[in-house]
Amino acid sequence: MTRVLYELAAADPDRRFSPFCWRIRLALEHKGLAFEGRPWRFVETDAIAFSGSDKVPVLVEDGQAIAESSVIAAHLEAAYPDRPSLFGGAAGAALTRFSIAWTDQVLHPALVPLLLLDIHRHLDEPNRRYFRESREARFRKPLEAVCPDPEAQRVTLRRTLSPVRAVLRSQPFLGGESPLYADHAVMGAFLWARGVSVQALLEPDDPVEAWRLRMLERLGEGSRALVSG
Amino acid sequence: MTRVLYELAAADPDRRFSPFCWRIRLALEHKGLAFEGRPWRFVETDAIAFSGSDKVPVLVEDGQAIAESSVIAAHLEAAYPDRPSLFGGAAGAALTRFSIAWTDQVLHPALVPLLLLDIHRHLDEPNRRYFRESREARFRKPLEAVCPDPEAQRVTLRRTLSPVRAVLRSQPFLGGESPLYADHAVMGAFLWARGVSVQALLEPDDPVEAWRLRMLERLGEGSRALVSG
Repeated sequence: MTRVLYELAAADPDRRFSPFCWRIRLALEHKGLAFEGRPWRFVETDAIAFSGSDKVPVLVEDGQAIAESSVIAAHLEAAYPDRPSLFGGAAGAALTRFSIAWTDQVLHPALVPLLLLDIHRHLDEPNRRYFRESREARFRKPLEAVCPDPEAQRVTLRRTLSPVRAVLRSQPFLGGESPLYADHAVMGAFLWARGVSVQALLEPDDPVEAWRLRMLERLGEGSRALVSG
Repeated sequence: MTRVLYELAAADPDRRFSPFCWRIRLALEHKGLAFEGRPWRFVETDAIAFSGSDKVPVLVEDGQAIAESSVIAAHLEAAYPDRPSLFGGAAGAALTRFSIAWTDQVLHPALVPLLLLDIHRHLDEPNRRYFRESREARFRKPLEAVCPDPEAQRVTLRRTLSPVRAVLRSQPFLGGESPLYADHAVMGAFLWARGVSVQALLEPDDPVEAWRLRMLERLGEGSRALVSG
């Protein structure tokens, strides 16, 4: 079987920086499924038009395209039930949705102001134009004005992580003794940041930082190459 | 078997207002286990000294005392494996901890400013003194100064609920098709509020409000009597 994951990339194709694409990369590694991660940029909508989506991640297995990270994760769980589970059963799948919703609605908004300029810097000209226009419309201000005080925003981010921190004080992963898709969802945010930025988001003695390092250690070989730069 | 749950109560013994006690009440009903809910007040530490705890919930089964809501919930799951599961398996138990941590660390702090004066009003004199002293030490201001703008605080509370709302747009309960302990943890906050306050915390068209009403409908008979006032 051929398996291709279209992933958001910067001008340098090894800078992959979509948190949603990282979730699926981690999910594929979790399932032990080989794949080609194909770099894709914002403006290349024609290249994935066949999928019916204008956004990544798009997973293509033997010509069958699936878009949207949660749909792809559910597909992987259903299609490969003999591989390690992403959710730990039906109840786990239902409960995971809260971690995902929290990541999307609370964690990402706390992180994105810290990354906008880093992302912009790493794009080529046509993607820079797209990124600036779409994000300035969303934030209703110039990119440069979204995060006037990065250190204060990092403090907000660390405070935002308090429920993750509380869990990681009592168990090594959100999934318990080993990671589940809930871990991949939260880790997607940190790999997004790592793809474009060198800033230290967490304090060295933060249990969330220890967990982030444990998650990095577990990356597959292909992903290691992407985050080693 | 005799089974007694010590629950935080106001001067009126039917006003039960600890979110942690409500979690266990809902968990006992979830497991279909009969129990006596015994009202207990802040200053009655002597009455539960036998448990080694100075706080409720305390569950006593045939003379064996267990304190702390998460410990009690884990006990119920382990001791009654043939009854409906609170967590849906080991992965579910691990994933539930994030919902609990979020409830404790994010939802409760958004709610408590709205309830302090209501709680105070419903206590008898010795408990009022205890409550005012302990809470004013915690907030470092008079009870009356903690929430100068209740309507703004209710807006904050509703915004805080956004990840719960997102999940409830796609499934009827946090646990999926039926409630799990994650639902009981979040519902504990709303039953805490209902025990002492008549303010409408949620908008009528909020999916969280629809879920709250579904949860109320599922209450056992004994709990219905407590919330009908």
